[in-house]
Amino acid sequence: MTVEVISVGTELLLGNIVNTNTQYLAEKCAGLGLAMYYQSVVGDNEERMTKAFTEAFERSDIVILTGGLGPTEDDMTKEICAKVLGLPLILHERSKQRIADYFVRTSRNNITENNWKQAMIPEGAFVLDNDNGTAPGLIVEKEGGCVILLPGPPNELKPLFEEKVVPYIKKRSPETICSAMVKLCGVGESRAETMIKDLIDTQSNPTIATYAKTSECDIRVTARAASEAEAMALIQPTVDELFKRFGENIFTTHEEETLEQAVVKLLKQKGLTVTTAESCTGGLVAARLINVSGVSDVIKSGYITYCDEAKHQILGVPSDLLEKYTAVSEQVAGAMAIGGAKAAGADACLSVTGIAGPDGGTEEKPVGLVYVGCFLQGDTVVREFKMRGNRDKIREQAVVQALDLLRRRLITDMGE
Amino acid sequence: MTVEVISVGTELLLGNIVNTNTQYLAEKCAGLGLAMYYQSVVGDNEERMTKAFTEAFERSDIVILTGGLGPTEDDMTKEICAKVLGLPLILHERSKQRIADYFVRTSRNNITENNWKQAMIPEGAFVLDNDNGTAPGLIVEKEGGCVILLPGPPNELKPLFEEKVVPYIKKRSPETICSAMVKLCGVGESRAETMIKDLIDTQSNPTIATYAKTSECDIRVTARAASEAEAMALIQPTVDELFKRFGENIFTTHEEETLEQAVVKLLKQKGLTVTTAESCTGGLVAARLINVSGVSDVIKSGYITYCDEAKHQILGVPSDLLEKYTAVSEQVAGAMAIGGAKAAGADACLSVTGIAGPDGGTEEKPVGLVYVGCFLQGDTVVREFKMRGNRDKIREQAVVQALDLLRRRLITDMGE
Repeated sequence: MTVEVISVGTELLLGNIVNTNTQYLAEKCAGLGLAMYYQSVVGDNEERMTKAFTEAFERSDIVILTGGLGPTEDDMTKEICAKVLGLPLILHERSKQRIADYFVRTSRNNITENNWKQAMIPEGAFVLDNDNGTAPGLIVEKEGGCVILLPGPPNELKPLFEEKVVPYIKKRSPETICSAMVKLCGVGESRAETMIKDLIDTQSNPTIATYAKTSECDIRVTARAASEAEAMALIQPTVDELFKRFGENIFTTHEEETLEQAVVKLLKQKGLTVTTAESCTGGLVAARLINVSGVSDVIKSGYITYCDEAKHQILGVPSDLLEKYTAVSEQVAGAMAIGGAKAAGADACLSVTGIAGPDGGTEEKPVGLVYVGCFLQGDTVVREFKMRGNRDKIREQAVVQALDLLRRRLITDMGE
Repeated sequence: MTVEVISVGTELLLGNIVNTNTQYLAEKCAGLGLAMYYQSVVGDNEERMTKAFTEAFERSDIVILTGGLGPTEDDMTKEICAKVLGLPLILHERSKQRIADYFVRTSRNNITENNWKQAMIPEGAFVLDNDNGTAPGLIVEKEGGCVILLPGPPNELKPLFEEKVVPYIKKRSPETICSAMVKLCGVGESRAETMIKDLIDTQSNPTIATYAKTSECDIRVTARAASEAEAMALIQPTVDELFKRFGENIFTTHEEETLEQAVVKLLKQKGLTVTTAESCTGGLVAARLINVSGVSDVIKSGYITYCDEAKHQILGVPSDLLEKYTAVSEQVAGAMAIGGAKAAGADACLSVTGIAGPDGGTEEKPVGLVYVGCFLQGDTVVREFKMRGNRDKIREQAVVQALDLLRRRLITDMGE
């Protein structure tokens, strides 16, 4: 089955926002085993929208339209869809009631005649109730084709797609599609691909797709079969092979689990606390740990020590160490980790010191040189990295390497 | 003049990456006064690419093609463009030399026959030398139309566009396009638009476009005229009007200046230092300040105090205050700011304490309740916010509000 996405919105054509909806839908559709050959963006213009939609409906099995479902006259996605498909728009009573309820629930009292426009649906459409806004999602089937209309705001689009469209597509699909996610870190973005190039080159069922992030890489394995059990049986050997190749670089096989969640889970399991002593990352390591909800048993405090004086005063890094080796050194990274743990009374401490640039590099200590330290119950390990990219990118990589160092030590030094 | 963007790449169709190139190009083109009616994405497929490009070339004055300029057989953007335009591909000697030089410069010795494919250009094309990769950019003019080919990696595409395509488009344009950027913070995303709805509704020349970010909003004013002086004269009254309406919400009119840069600049001008005392933001305020290169005169340290104990021990927040008012209170936010400044010996301290959720909210203190404190040379100010959104979004808003509070105090409490 083929699918394509048409995003409607002047804000995309003006570059006011990035089209994250299409990336989300593309990734989800790939996971459902749908083939996507086109993505497009058009503005709120009747002629251009009609042309784009007509063409898409002719060439693809499923057309997903996002945006343009608002209450104003500019919003015409639904109207054009109904017109092209030759369907009248009729009032959908449940949606009307839900819109009225939404205004009450969110303490708004500015409902206008316009808002009822959002309760109009193409005759025969299947309505997807929207809990986070006033525009319902819609699925319209016609002549063997299928059109899915979704509101533009991501916090409305995503739950509707996940909870309502995914089950619909699965039911509609002649086969069962299953996928598994294998998430890695500590492997360079392109190295991960090289390491499985043979698997990618020979893939058919299951298929393998990699999703690179900064110093992390997600690998999705997708299989199609007559039943879920058969699909999972097709997936398993590939997942096993990935474990054989990447070993402990794999931090989770849970799609929604982040690296910081994996680290926090390990710390909780072992009843350990952690703190941070950061220089060039300036608080980002702690911020990412604290991004996990309910982390207060695990991290109680953290230190940002950007200058030598703070490294000495707050973390107790000896002045002669700072003088002899300078702040960006293995020795100081180690002393920061030890000092941070002591200051906070924590079982573990992650330290980061490096040259994030663009200034401050020397021939001996160039921009991108980063030391990551990890104190864990008495033992300290320091790793040296030579990172590429701009200031932001170097800091991001340093954060991932720090979290990953602690994760590895928690699984290897201490046993699972 | 109309322009459209076609991105070529399977990784976009699979959702492996977000299409940030198109957003970048769309924003830049809007700033150049070009009208963009379409954006599309196709894969490395001859038939579909040919159809998409042919259609685009017919309907738009300028077509920008990104991606598919690599050395492999899959990469066929240039080949298809040349074929549709009826131009032969010829070897471009300077590009060949540059490719060879690039391999030497980046210490690679794996140059292959394939790589010379990147030195082939459609006859008559104008070559844009690429300093950051091996694929040159190209501009091809034919039948009054214009095609611009750019490599996909953003760190290659952006400098090429900025340094070479922008001057080309400006020269080609019958008019001069100028724009000014006005950047605000502390005004809700939709409130900024409401406050200038009348200007937007009646706009023609100059035009006004808003670019909303979390708790920040950029407003671009663009005018077209026969000369730069005339265009700037058209822009100025609108910029003046924006200053009248938004006043000190405006933190800069420099396109590239960020909020944290504006804050650091003010601190440097006044010779002041700052520190941070963060709870729910977990280091993000400090991280954003330290995102500014060369900030070491201004911020030397910061504290993350996620639990009550750390607030007491590190910042000296009195225990009875924490017991009586709880950590998320105006009183504790104030004490954190005072204690942080004292601990660090800094002139100023930003503190943040709040309930970022999804758990931990109560009826009295719901998720989204955030207190931001600012100590500045003896005086402490605390602001209460009720923020919406998920944990991430609440934390992001809190960071902006904290930076903005300091900025306002630096310009009003102390005079410009």
